[in-house]
Amino acid sequence: MKSDIEIARAAARRPIWEIGEGLGIPAEFLEPYGNDKAKVATPFIESLHERPNGKLILVTAISPTPAGEGKTTTTVGLGDGINRIGKKAVICLREPSLGPCFGVKGGAAGGGHAQIVPMEDINLHFTGDFHAISTAHNLLAAMIDNHIHWGNEQGLDPRRVTWRRVMDMNDRALRDIVCSLGGVANGYPRETGFDITVASEVMAILCLAEDLEDLERRLGNIIVGYRRDKSAVTARDLKADGAMATLLKQAVKPNLVQTLENNPAFVHGGPFANIAHGCNSVIATKTALKLADYVVTEAGFGADLGAEKFFDIKCRMAGLKPDAVVLVATIKALKMNGGVAKEDLGREDVAAVERGCANLGRHLENIGQFGVPAVVAINHFTSDTAAEIDFVKAYVAELGAKAIVARHWEEGSAGIEDLAREAVALADSGTASFSPLYPDDLSLFKKMEAVVRRIYRGAHVAASEAVLAQLVEWEEKGFGHLPVCMAKTQYSFSTDPHRRGAPAGHTVPVREVRLSAGAGFIVAICGEIMTMPGLPKEPAAEKIRLNAEGLIEGLF
Amino acid sequence: MKSDIEIARAAARRPIWEIGEGLGIPAEFLEPYGNDKAKVATPFIESLHERPNGKLILVTAISPTPAGEGKTTTTVGLGDGINRIGKKAVICLREPSLGPCFGVKGGAAGGGHAQIVPMEDINLHFTGDFHAISTAHNLLAAMIDNHIHWGNEQGLDPRRVTWRRVMDMNDRALRDIVCSLGGVANGYPRETGFDITVASEVMAILCLAEDLEDLERRLGNIIVGYRRDKSAVTARDLKADGAMATLLKQAVKPNLVQTLENNPAFVHGGPFANIAHGCNSVIATKTALKLADYVVTEAGFGADLGAEKFFDIKCRMAGLKPDAVVLVATIKALKMNGGVAKEDLGREDVAAVERGCANLGRHLENIGQFGVPAVVAINHFTSDTAAEIDFVKAYVAELGAKAIVARHWEEGSAGIEDLAREAVALADSGTASFSPLYPDDLSLFKKMEAVVRRIYRGAHVAASEAVLAQLVEWEEKGFGHLPVCMAKTQYSFSTDPHRRGAPAGHTVPVREVRLSAGAGFIVAICGEIMTMPGLPKEPAAEKIRLNAEGLIEGLF
Repeated sequence: MKSDIEIARAAARRPIWEIGEGLGIPAEFLEPYGNDKAKVATPFIESLHERPNGKLILVTAISPTPAGEGKTTTTVGLGDGINRIGKKAVICLREPSLGPCFGVKGGAAGGGHAQIVPMEDINLHFTGDFHAISTAHNLLAAMIDNHIHWGNEQGLDPRRVTWRRVMDMNDRALRDIVCSLGGVANGYPRETGFDITVASEVMAILCLAEDLEDLERRLGNIIVGYRRDKSAVTARDLKADGAMATLLKQAVKPNLVQTLENNPAFVHGGPFANIAHGCNSVIATKTALKLADYVVTEAGFGADLGAEKFFDIKCRMAGLKPDAVVLVATIKALKMNGGVAKEDLGREDVAAVERGCANLGRHLENIGQFGVPAVVAINHFTSDTAAEIDFVKAYVAELGAKAIVARHWEEGSAGIEDLAREAVALADSGTASFSPLYPDDLSLFKKMEAVVRRIYRGAHVAASEAVLAQLVEWEEKGFGHLPVCMAKTQYSFSTDPHRRGAPAGHTVPVREVRLSAGAGFIVAICGEIMTMPGLPKEPAAEKIRLNAEGLIEGLF
Repeated sequence: MKSDIEIARAAARRPIWEIGEGLGIPAEFLEPYGNDKAKVATPFIESLHERPNGKLILVTAISPTPAGEGKTTTTVGLGDGINRIGKKAVICLREPSLGPCFGVKGGAAGGGHAQIVPMEDINLHFTGDFHAISTAHNLLAAMIDNHIHWGNEQGLDPRRVTWRRVMDMNDRALRDIVCSLGGVANGYPRETGFDITVASEVMAILCLAEDLEDLERRLGNIIVGYRRDKSAVTARDLKADGAMATLLKQAVKPNLVQTLENNPAFVHGGPFANIAHGCNSVIATKTALKLADYVVTEAGFGADLGAEKFFDIKCRMAGLKPDAVVLVATIKALKMNGGVAKEDLGREDVAAVERGCANLGRHLENIGQFGVPAVVAINHFTSDTAAEIDFVKAYVAELGAKAIVARHWEEGSAGIEDLAREAVALADSGTASFSPLYPDDLSLFKKMEAVVRRIYRGAHVAASEAVLAQLVEWEEKGFGHLPVCMAKTQYSFSTDPHRRGAPAGHTVPVREVRLSAGAGFIVAICGEIMTMPGLPKEPAAEKIRLNAEGLIEGLF
């Protein structure tokens, strides 16, 4: 069996301007990065304003397990599939983070015969967007310490600086540091640390901004810390917003690449799916909607986190109206959700599939609460049995939806035609009447309750007095209209990653709340959230190298 | 008077493939980054091997002063000038560092009518080379702490880790830090810090590597620290070399841009000129030599540091044979070297010019020691008087060379024809018989003495017993054949930056020596060397922003 990278390298790529041409982007509005990647120039994007929008299809998944659901692979496959059945579709994906590629082997550009290329570049430096985001983020950090060093006119309390630094690297040694040691010339020592770049609020901002102007405005709103009187100091107070936007002037433009079947894909932005909203950029999605009849996009983690944030944060802010949802499941992941250990997944076990379907059913029901019709994609593995598949189909049918087997991983678009037809039919059906889960004017705590009760099916949100007081303070300061961004384990509806299936009635503790004033949401931390990964004992980096032909080995 | 950026924006740029075509680079071997920047593909570079080389002309300068000498501007102007007189010339420059652009206003892409474009991109992210270098450097750092965290099989002494981290940012708060705080999961706390990316040994390595294979070999040789028994641990011991080379596979390819007059320029690599050798990449210079009759390149700082390192490190390692040198001076900088204060530079002062010429004469004599003929370029300012210029011409004539006024800043190539003709004549004269200052097999200390006595005209190298013992130890371990890289103030032949002109007989203290085993030189630290700059009280970043047309303001 060929590996992903072998399949990718064997594919015939078309020059990126041809891909752009197919979308109606004139070559002069494509800024090439090599011959297989390009950014779309801003004047072209602005010229699209009056055009009608295509239909928006979200690909999300059941609760993730180590078995994998193939959400990105299905997103790519579905895009190819819709193009195959004669409709014009564009795929919108997140950009993968470079750092983790050197930890555990494996990229994030789809798999099998449903991939985007050039996958090596996409997984590494790509068009430099993440480097630009790191630089803009760290410029602000440097300006904070510089401001304090030169007299601290703003009166920033060095103990209350909340803005950390970032690096696109798995580096646990940088999680907690003391900076500014070494004497007078180096400033005032204080505790701080680094997060991985995808956790940067600048990343979330870039992905929620409507355009460069909105980007700069949001950057200015970033709260970097507080004065002794607890009033906030912003990036605008430090006059950092203009320079940060300048550093992001290329990064804000969507990146165009192609699938193995030469269909167009925008790959742009990749915020964390826990402390941020986990979707590709609004600019890419909106541009795609102007250029194609169907836009297929994905959101991070399972539907409880990814789809909820896609709806309540991205769609709410950007005024997007999704038309259909594809909920991805695999028989293996259903079995794991049904309690089967990884080593037993190869054996037929309909009872376990049945138990796992509780998870699938819950997600399907949740999606319905947003008013968007859904279809279930069974991402096919050779070990799946007819009995297992039939069970899922019947289960889903009882819930009033369809479950369709998709073989895009093995067969490319030829294996996903049925799903493509159903997704298109759903999107075209006009049955969608999207609305977010809660209104803007609900109190911040009640917004958290809404998500916990209606999506996670918990009984109760536990928050300390300090957290509740903080929420009230933010409401008083004018941040009460913001949506909430729940940072919770992706492995369970509860906050215990081991409680698979469809737990209910649990308590969700909100340990800490954070204000992302630039991105425009309140983060509720409901568990341990790691914002800087580490490398494993034998990092993938040890095996990554260029072979004699200059091709990368060990990365995938 | 138009600003640099206004002049640059008014220039008509040609598509980069046309610039490549003019050099004989087929479009399929140019990897575009936008329409005005491109990398040259490796197979094309490899195909040039058998071609004859053009002539190599180094542009260097007298000891720098705040008045500025215009070395980069003259390099660009000379390239344009040689093309203007009907010869084929390529310019080879260093890439500027992004971080400092946010400190003090001003870029590094020439000036007036002698600039390379797109100057905004070149000064900011450009083609991402520096980001790739930062990433490769920091991957190694992460792998070091990860190795220690997971059991430290190599026995690296955490107190003796010499590899720091880098960021392309002026951030004094990162100079000295304690990392790995926060408990068991974050590793073993230790002191470390960040340098600016241009100070990375990876930068020096990229600029000295012959090709990707040589790059990987050199990366493997990097010494990251020592064991308790003081034996060295290398990047190869940590299996980091392959992944680092992979991260640099694009960065190693030279970047092609154009001058305002649409002549080709390679802008590639930019190592520090104190703890490293301060020249653009060997790969770019060698590629340029295959494509043009004349290659005009520059080296950092004044000739005592820049030219010496160009000759003794870059040319020695790469087997380059320079054919001519252009030594840049300005009347203003000569006056400052003659003791005039900045506010009095506008007044005619032939006596001060005469005193300053001692500096010029010394550099000219030094260049002669390398066997390369030189011409002096007087980079013209409107305040220069005929008497001042005539004095310099006569002074230089007495030393057996010519001094030629160049008006490229005001007039572009039309103002530098005379200098171009003389530089070409010198390069074609066959009078060059280049040899480095000292042979490989001289002892490391005697190499330092050779530079101090013959170039700086000091009487004595002062080094502690510990430094001398270190040098002997390195010789015993097989590093005795390496050249030395002197890290000394650029403002004086002595180690006192205030001693302008041509001091002699001074003592040069070597406070510390460092082994750059990957780059392949021994660094001798002769004074305070700052490897991480800070931002000023009012950083340029506060004024940098995008205007309504999306153009950058406040950067230049």
